Amino acid sequence: MAENFGPAHAPSVLTVDLGALRRNYRLIAERTGAAECAAVVKADAYGAGIEPVSRALAAAGCQTFFVASLDEALALRTLQPAPVIYYLNGLMPGDTAVCRAHGIRPTLNDPAQIERWTADGIAHGEALPTALHIDTGMARLGLTPRETAALVDAPDRLRGFDITLLLSHMACADTPDHPMNVEQRDQFEAAAETLPAAARSLAASSGALLGPAWHFDMVRAGVALYGVSPHPGHLNPMEQVIQLQGKILQIRDVDTPQTVGYGAAHRFERPTKVATVAAGYADGYPRSLGDAGVAYFGKIAAPIVGRVSMDLITIDISKALDAKPGDMVDLIGPNNDLDSVAAAAGTIGYEILTRLGRRYHRRYIETVA
Amino acid sequence: MAENFGPAHAPSVLTVDLGALRRNYRLIAERTGAAECAAVVKADAYGAGIEPVSRALAAAGCQTFFVASLDEALALRTLQPAPVIYYLNGLMPGDTAVCRAHGIRPTLNDPAQIERWTADGIAHGEALPTALHIDTGMARLGLTPRETAALVDAPDRLRGFDITLLLSHMACADTPDHPMNVEQRDQFEAAAETLPAAARSLAASSGALLGPAWHFDMVRAGVALYGVSPHPGHLNPMEQVIQLQGKILQIRDVDTPQTVGYGAAHRFERPTKVATVAAGYADGYPRSLGDAGVAYFGKIAAPIVGRVSMDLITIDISKALDAKPGDMVDLIGPNNDLDSVAAAAGTIGYEILTRLGRRYHRRYIETVA
Repeated sequence: MAENFGPAHAPSVLTVDLGALRRNYRLIAERTGAAECAAVVKADAYGAGIEPVSRALAAAGCQTFFVASLDEALALRTLQPAPVIYYLNGLMPGDTAVCRAHGIRPTLNDPAQIERWTADGIAHGEALPTALHIDTGMARLGLTPRETAALVDAPDRLRGFDITLLLSHMACADTPDHPMNVEQRDQFEAAAETLPAAARSLAASSGALLGPAWHFDMVRAGVALYGVSPHPGHLNPMEQVIQLQGKILQIRDVDTPQTVGYGAAHRFERPTKVATVAAGYADGYPRSLGDAGVAYFGKIAAPIVGRVSMDLITIDISKALDAKPGDMVDLIGPNNDLDSVAAAAGTIGYEILTRLGRRYHRRYIETVA
Repeated sequence: MAENFGPAHAPSVLTVDLGALRRNYRLIAERTGAAECAAVVKADAYGAGIEPVSRALAAAGCQTFFVASLDEALALRTLQPAPVIYYLNGLMPGDTAVCRAHGIRPTLNDPAQIERWTADGIAHGEALPTALHIDTGMARLGLTPRETAALVDAPDRLRGFDITLLLSHMACADTPDHPMNVEQRDQFEAAAETLPAAARSLAASSGALLGPAWHFDMVRAGVALYGVSPHPGHLNPMEQVIQLQGKILQIRDVDTPQTVGYGAAHRFERPTKVATVAAGYADGYPRSLGDAGVAYFGKIAAPIVGRVSMDLITIDISKALDAKPGDMVDLIGPNNDLDSVAAAAGTIGYEILTRLGRRYHRRYIETVA
């Protein structure tokens, strides 16, 4: 898509508060004390925009970034020449030359990747700096316990072993009392002790805020940087970073027995003032918010009526007597934060964030606490 | 995001078949006979890519395009200098100068927009070519019946009236027997008769395939161009345009009582071969497909196990004995088409299409029927 041409014409506006982002980074960094606080900026910085987000985090002191793929690592390297960059998806065939050329660190997730890395290290006379991922229960990426044991039992496979980071990933860190948290930590610690010494990292955002026992040498702050609650159901210590506003295109008076939208799914029971707003599921406002989400006109709630369309939603704005076409309503804002919008949509803040569409006019601001 | 750097390294590949797209366009154009077949290419051509899609459709004979916003119309105009371009969201303050400069046609949705347009026409000595949207039951955009009647009753408001298109939009056209279809058609026809003569357009994809009574002078083919069934539950006459493949990053053997993924939400009951695939909800593969979607390794079904992560899914690939890391699986393909993936996710093909992520390597092909 071409760039949109400015806020005056923009049907909807996504505001990203880089000041709040930096304060969120510092809050996690303070709570994790001596451990390094790295930042996860995969998926275009969770939808918030890799360029401004990585710049703001680097300015806040972040020295290590994590992304998902080598593609993302390369894109980030063009923006940030200095920091350490790891990618998590694993060392694929052909990756090593790219990593060496651009100073990017892969993650080794399975024995074939270790062999690939070892062969490359022998060929070049020195090992590529890399992370080794030990799976402790996600069963997604990383060495299985059997593979880890086999590695320890075969010292020749450790030849040239110069791992810079041992990492694992927690499955249930958003639930502080989940027994798996302690199990994963114990398993990670035990495995790390059998392997050559390296910096250790277990926790992402939620784990980082579980307490010092989860910090090890590095935490990888991710979704909490962007305002999502690290422990849903508990007080959210993070500031909101994202505000999403949609423009009212039209307002109409309707009454029973009229319906609105596709499938005639919503039937009015009483005289209602309906505003049509320029945002829909193509913009990442989930279709599951039909007859479930709530927009706000200032402090006045304006529930979604009917289905979410591709480019439009309709809201009951009866209580906002002075609302008019051209005014903006909050789709994500002070009264309907990311987590509450996600809950209404039947999903999690992570998914709302990473779906944030491309049609919004994006505005980056820097608030002061 | 920066461009990814090629299919060999791409974690996932989105293939768009422009040949199938053109055949879908021609099929609708043939079925709608003398009526003009316009194309709807809003939301980056429903996620398929505005540049190649608009080029392919223009080559197939499409002479009129519809988008949602003026931003999108401008982006399309830079790609396609010749065709007529309408935008649907309505003539906002300040739009007329942009429309005149770039040969873009707005839609008039309410009396204030008509006044804006009339004033502009008087100022310039000639009216800007425009569509007038008459609402017949969506209650979303367009003149209400009362506003239409008021317009007819006040001939001075029709001064300079030179509408090129009268349009309306159907709420239930995907359900051929829905009584609202005939009601909307009758209402549209009656309203059009009271207004100065202009080309008339009621039907989008689903309406276009309801039969000649819905064609009027123009149909606006949209989602069906991209392969979504115009009438769910009936035989889909459209060809699939989209194939989405994800790369297997890692394969592991697991067994009870192990779990996989976030929340330890999926517990294995038997020895299982699990593949981790490089696509997740940040790529538009909905989180609601956790423990619900099905990937395919060739013709072999590989159900999603556990939750969908941001960048990864895990699938039970036990039946695909020769699957190995680096192989691709179909996330949307011949055995799991757009509509079936949408149904498993609890949504519609439209939302899957428009969520198609930015991280995929995009490949445009041109098959021959």
